[in-house]
Amino acid sequence: MNNEPVIKHSANAAAAPAPAPVTVVGLGLMGQALAGAFLRAGHPTTVWNRTASKADQLVAEGARRAPTLGEALGASPLTVVCLTDYDAVRDLLGTSGADLDGTTLVNLTSGDSAQAREAARWAAKLGARYLDGAIMAIPSAIGTADAVILHSGPAPDFAAHEPTLAALGTVTHLGADHGLASLYDVAGLAMMWSVLNAWLQGTALLRTVGVDAATYAPFARQIAAGVAEWLPGYAEQIDRGSFPAEVSALETDARAMAHMVEESEAAGVNAELPKLIQAMAARSIAAGHGAEQYPVLIEEFGKPSGG
Amino acid sequence: MNNEPVIKHSANAAAAPAPAPVTVVGLGLMGQALAGAFLRAGHPTTVWNRTASKADQLVAEGARRAPTLGEALGASPLTVVCLTDYDAVRDLLGTSGADLDGTTLVNLTSGDSAQAREAARWAAKLGARYLDGAIMAIPSAIGTADAVILHSGPAPDFAAHEPTLAALGTVTHLGADHGLASLYDVAGLAMMWSVLNAWLQGTALLRTVGVDAATYAPFARQIAAGVAEWLPGYAEQIDRGSFPAEVSALETDARAMAHMVEESEAAGVNAELPKLIQAMAARSIAAGHGAEQYPVLIEEFGKPSGG
Ligand SMILES: NC(=O)c1ccc[n+]([C@@H]2O[C@H](COP(=O)([O-])OP(=O)(O)OC[C@H]3O[C@@H](n4cnc5c(N)ncnc54)[C@H](OP(=O)(O)O)[C@@H]3O)[C@@H](O)[C@H]2O)c1
Ligand SMILES: NC(=O)c1ccc[n+]([C@@H]2O[C@H](COP(=O)([O-])OP(=O)(O)OC[C@H]3O[C@@H](n4cnc5c(N)ncnc54)[C@H](OP(=O)(O)O)[C@@H]3O)[C@@H](O)[C@H]2O)c1
Repeated sequence: MNNEPVIKHSANAAAAPAPAPVTVVGLGLMGQALAGAFLRAGHPTTVWNRTASKADQLVAEGARRAPTLGEALGASPLTVVCLTDYDAVRDLLGTSGADLDGTTLVNLTSGDSAQAREAARWAAKLGARYLDGAIMAIPSAIGTADAVILHSGPAPDFAAHEPTLAALGTVTHLGADHGLASLYDVAGLAMMWSVLNAWLQGTALLRTVGVDAATYAPFARQIAAGVAEWLPGYAEQIDRGSFPAEVSALETDARAMAHMVEESEAAGVNAELPKLIQAMAARSIAAGHGAEQYPVLIEEFGKPSGG
Repeated sequence: MNNEPVIKHSANAAAAPAPAPVTVVGLGLMGQALAGAFLRAGHPTTVWNRTASKADQLVAEGARRAPTLGEALGASPLTVVCLTDYDAVRDLLGTSGADLDGTTLVNLTSGDSAQAREAARWAAKLGARYLDGAIMAIPSAIGTADAVILHSGPAPDFAAHEPTLAALGTVTHLGADHGLASLYDVAGLAMMWSVLNAWLQGTALLRTVGVDAATYAPFARQIAAGVAEWLPGYAEQIDRGSFPAEVSALETDARAMAHMVEESEAAGVNAELPKLIQAMAARSIAAGHGAEQYPVLIEEFGKPSGG
């Protein structure tokens, strides 16, 4: 999605040492892409899948097929696992008697932060080092800098295997809490769908007066990219807990929000997104923050819904 | 907000001809900024405000104070007006008997598209050329490329005065429909607040595990800017009315949306934004679009709420 490093990254295997061996367990659409990227980066790659035939293409490209899961795990100090869900990972590795002692497991299966922390617990009991990961990319992007892959867990374990993991894309380490990769993933998805929905809202509105989507899109892109630049500065207000209305007060924003809702309703397009924007600000104003600046809404976003 | 031109722009008065005279009517916070920018760009600037004292500072900087509104309108072929709202503009210029014959009026007052079209009608009856505008900037940005000012109305009228209007910032002409400036403005605001809300959602979520806002902000910025780049391509799907799942099908997205809602609820933060994202997609899936790609949601956004 983006080439810029996030917090800590490496876009390609570094330099001197020979590429380290790696095992990939789970060869669905994503697992095959992961193993393929390791192979192309020169890593001796061992693969295993419940349905063995899914390894055929990779074997033709140079992968080593492990006849059993145990041999797959034993073949490399690092095993990357990518299955349907966390239940499948626990069934296959956590409760099947598989020997994980001394292995570093990087679990790139999608799940939530609670599942990631639980997996870290059972992996530790079985003697494994454990990193949780979230893939913010589609299979075809794996192996390019566009594939953002988030990791969380002990920093030394990430550092030890970063030169290998870097074959997959732009890999980052977020912190020791195993739940972080999933939380950043979810936060990133909320941003993704919010930008898309706001663009759809504007597109729907402008189509009512004959403006086509292609004409409007560059404008939407410019606004989204421009507002993105404000975030680091606004974040400082949140961390300080002080929201002086340097640019505009919430009460002034609220008048423009009313316009936004009215235009959407008058045009006969969906108005739920504009109304939610308006409702969140109205609550913050009702709580006495009308003279403060937009990031003060963090107080509303931080509360349970309706609470 | 952004330095890149949108559709048609000029960031500074061009070259050869002497700066044309201009009149500014309405010297509130914004009107004073507009007049100041014209003055700094060398335009002979006539000003008028209901409360005359608000012109004092501008006069000290070289503006000419018109003793009456009529003299202000007569002093320049172009009058820029910026009052509280459209009612004030109609009271002052539309129904007061003011002589607008032959004048070009650029109305930068905030309002909705219906108000803009109505103002175009009464201005035409009074013999004026009329452009409607929307200022997407705060007063302190006026006169810099960061100030995006949208215009709509007859293209020749914009072209005739673009060299003067360009003193105000990045000025663009959107089309002949006088309502367009207001509609783009509203669409841009929906994008602005959506990016901010998605960032607040992620920030709230990550604060529950001790990640501060400044740590998370660069990640949010990167996602927002990255997704912004997809919009022109996605717009082509909308204009073609064809939504093949090249990247991901809506049904796959829906699983990740469920995760997003669960993580927000489990963390005890507000979940209304995640739930609205989920609800819009669920409706589109229910309408039979589960195997198509995200922009197919334009059909939901184009319908009245609940319709
Ligand atoms: N595809 C994407 O675009 C994408 C993007 C980001 C994240 N992800 C995530 O990556 C993960 C894998 O996705 P995918 O697209 O590769 O899915 P997939 O094509 O459906 O593959 C699922 C894999 O899980 C294996 N599996 C499932 N249950 C198992 C069990 N009980 N024991 C052993 N193996 C089991 C399957 O083995 P069999 O072949 O034997 O059935 C197969 O290898 C998911 O969590 C997904 O959310 C995918
Ligand atoms: N300030 C911003 O950040 C900003 C940003 C974008 C757009 N805008 C828009 O720009 C417009 C002006 O905003 P502003 O900040 O300059 O507001 P303001 O400081 O409150 O100024 C309002 C102006 O309107 C005049 N006015 C109001 N009613 C009038 C009437 N019936 N007859 C004659 N004059 C009348 C006032 O004259 P008196 O001085 O005699 O009262 C004053 O000059 C608004 O539509 C606003 O939404 C403002």
